[in-house]
Amino acid sequence: LTGTSPQFGNRGMTLEEDLNETNEYYLQTGQAVIHKKPTPVQIVGVDYPKRSAATITEAYFKQPSTTDYNGVYSGKYIDFEAKETRNKTSFPFGNVHEHQVKHMERVVNQGGIAFLIFRFSPTQEVYLYDASHFIYWFREQKERKSIPKNDIEEKGHLVPQGLSPRLDYLQIIDRVYF
Amino acid sequence: LTGTSPQFGNRGMTLEEDLNETNEYYLQTGQAVIHKKPTPVQIVGVDYPKRSAATITEAYFKQPSTTDYNGVYSGKYIDFEAKETRNKTSFPFGNVHEHQVKHMERVVNQGGIAFLIFRFSPTQEVYLYDASHFIYWFREQKERKSIPKNDIEEKGHLVPQGLSPRLDYLQIIDRVYF
Ligand SMILES: [Mg+2]
Ligand SMILES: [Mg+2]
Repeated sequence: LTGTSPQFGNRGMTLEEDLNETNEYYLQTGQAVIHKKPTPVQIVGVDYPKRSAATITEAYFKQPSTTDYNGVYSGKYIDFEAKETRNKTSFPFGNVHEHQVKHMERVVNQGGIAFLIFRFSPTQEVYLYDASHFIYWFREQKERKSIPKNDIEEKGHLVPQGLSPRLDYLQIIDRVYF
Repeated sequence: LTGTSPQFGNRGMTLEEDLNETNEYYLQTGQAVIHKKPTPVQIVGVDYPKRSAATITEAYFKQPSTTDYNGVYSGKYIDFEAKETRNKTSFPFGNVHEHQVKHMERVVNQGGIAFLIFRFSPTQEVYLYDASHFIYWFREQKERKSIPKNDIEEKGHLVPQGLSPRLDYLQIIDRVYF
């Protein structure tokens, strides 16, 4: 453990698990309605056995055409993608797809609140980083395929971590977007 | 064809197909960003053949915990469920699940725009009906398991139909919610 490790970090939970728990907490406390979208699947074969549930026997993963999470907070549309990296000094954006970036641009143009939640697993730091900055790195500069960590530290917002909710990103949304 | 059939009705498209085309039109023209959520699937078995895509070999349909469609229009969160019926005088709500109604209630409480889109297939009429009315029939009255069509005609809004977009429900949203 280093000095930068958040108190509740390193519990072996994936970022997705932490966010699902957080969203469930927001749902149960009536603070926000935000869900992870189901994994898109192309269904090819289905069996309908008598007296039991339909069984999908052949299907394939499809590329998602949007981001991972969306929902509503105080009437406003919230949309984000969550990504984890083992890098220490930058966030590679290779695994964010073109149509996900396109989706973020559309959400921004439509006045929605769009951002990414990044976790640096070596230090367990989690940042909320507005989509506009991400779009800049992805679209406007050609030198590199990653975002320097110091830009994320400077323009992003460290998400407070705790037991419940684990990643209290609504605190940041309140401060930054309202 | 009866006198109440909309001009562009009866083309053999499902309501879902008409809405997907409409949402694609809104997306391409920059008017709104609204998507159908993927069907939730519980994946049990996956094969990873060498040199080709992962194949899902066993999976099951899960009950959706939210409604069919959501997205953003002018910064506001939009959420709806689409249902078709062959009934002529009422809309049975038997196939809307408890947790979908719970979801609508949460969206309304959070200030989102929530509604249902009903199609009466005998006449091809399509109505946008605010979630609050649906919640009333579902929760508050015990006599019947359906909504009388005249209530939908009175409190709902007939959705204009055309070639593209096929179901121009944003016209109604503009008038009713903004
Ligand atoms: Mg992700
Ligand atoms: Mg439906």
